[in-house]
Amino acid sequence: MTVASQMLDTYPADLGGVDRQKLTACIEAGYECAQACTACADACLSEEMVAELTKCIRTNLDCADVCDTTGRVLSRHTGYDANLTRAVLEACAAACKACGDECEQHASMHEHCRVCAEACRRCETACRELLGSLG
Amino acid sequence: MTVASQMLDTYPADLGGVDRQKLTACIEAGYECAQACTACADACLSEEMVAELTKCIRTNLDCADVCDTTGRVLSRHTGYDANLTRAVLEACAAACKACGDECEQHASMHEHCRVCAEACRRCETACRELLGSLG
Amino acid sequence: MTVASQMLDTYPADLGGVDRQKLTACIEAGYECAQACTACADACLSEEMVAELTKCIRTNLDCADVCDTTGRVLSRHTGYDANLTRAVLEACAAACKACGDECEQHASMHEHCRVCAEACRRCETACRELLGSLG
Amino acid sequence: MTVASQMLDTYPADLGGVDRQKLTACIEAGYECAQACTACADACLSEEMVAELTKCIRTNLDCADVCDTTGRVLSRHTGYDANLTRAVLEACAAACKACGDECEQHASMHEHCRVCAEACRRCETACRELLGSLG
Repeated sequence: MTVASQMLDTYPADLGGVDRQKLTACIEAGYECAQACTACADACLSEEMVAELTKCIRTNLDCADVCDTTGRVLSRHTGYDANLTRAVLEACAAACKACGDECEQHASMHEHCRVCAEACRRCETACRELLGSLG
Repeated sequence: MTVASQMLDTYPADLGGVDRQKLTACIEAGYECAQACTACADACLSEEMVAELTKCIRTNLDCADVCDTTGRVLSRHTGYDANLTRAVLEACAAACKACGDECEQHASMHEHCRVCAEACRRCETACRELLGSLG
Repeated sequence: MTVASQMLDTYPADLGGVDRQKLTACIEAGYECAQACTACADACLSEEMVAELTKCIRTNLDCADVCDTTGRVLSRHTGYDANLTRAVLEACAAACKACGDECEQHASMHEHCRVCAEACRRCETACRELLGSLG
Repeated sequence: MTVASQMLDTYPADLGGVDRQKLTACIEAGYECAQACTACADACLSEEMVAELTKCIRTNLDCADVCDTTGRVLSRHTGYDANLTRAVLEACAAACKACGDECEQHASMHEHCRVCAEACRRCETACRELLGSLG
């Protein structure tokens, strides 16, 4: 069992009907994607053709920040606010879509972009599935 | 002139028709609100009646994280993506609205909640004005 | 293979003699601990005895922020600066020690503190092992 | 009066003998430097000679993250831990020194690096002065 799912299981109050499995998946995909995007921005910086990767780096940095904040917001359950959760998930899905699309264009040339694009797709999917399960 | 506006003035490429004044105001309001919310969560923790402020603390923490990410995204202009900017600004306005409303309820009793609510209102307004100015 | 280790393997330049396994372990422990501490702060907020857990919440919040930054710094390899890496790892080990000690005091009463203390210990150990391996 | 100083003034408990003016200055310099470094990394990305600025971008990103975390840790006073505060301030001074040195090398050519180097110097000084005032 992952630490994120243990933390969810030991939360002392009611989780208010949220889909536990989708929530756990989204928290884990968010932190994983934040790390991948931070590393991908840096890997792009070390490519000889960095001048052609500046949009990719910028999108990586945005996606890392948005995923990081999403992972934090989803790790909190006290005083749950569905409106805020939805707005954050929408922003995260948008960031992952943008970064996944951008990294995919460089995936055949740069392995780090391929790995990162996959992390973005997983996180975007996890955000949309959690969004779909919210009342 | 603030550092944020100096950084905007020294950006070496085109800012793509964004309203500079509204952008600067939003960046500054975002960082200011992130700090206020972090401090307000901690001040609430030190109140004797902390048990009645747990929703306020949680909303403060979310708002700090979302404002922080918004300040970062808005500080970047390379490879601008209007969709992502809009989604982030919507999330930030939602977080500031939720936190401003919550802190306002405690404003007459706790001065830190009054100061924080004002920072949230300014940031929410700055986000909505920037949103309104985007094409 | 985890995403963090895939990102490390696909970095296009030289990693400069760093111990790959210790680096990967530290990146992963940092993100894991950041999530656990964020969740533990929130779980403490939902305990009836929250008034007795305010120091724990504060330490959780600090540790989450420091681990998050450490995970980001360690995910970058371009233009490596040993002095900065060391200072960040020292701060992270200190934050994890403080939070692990604090959570341990509540571990028999609150399961989330037990899980979080373990994550802090793993991250502190990973930081110290990486520190020890740096030239 | 700035919001940061208002938040400090409205903190409901004892600040434990910290130098209020030095603390306020350090919190404000930290957030200001975090913003400047985020913007400078992005400005570097938009320079034609980006390939010669990759170390600068990396140092900017590290400094932004460390300053952000420092601003957060210093905004909390509940359950104050001098050891952790010191370790975080040492890491922040190191990050600001590294980034100030790097940006200074490009200051005559890139105005954003000049403005950013100044923000880094102010933050490094503020960290060292606060460190010096701690018991």
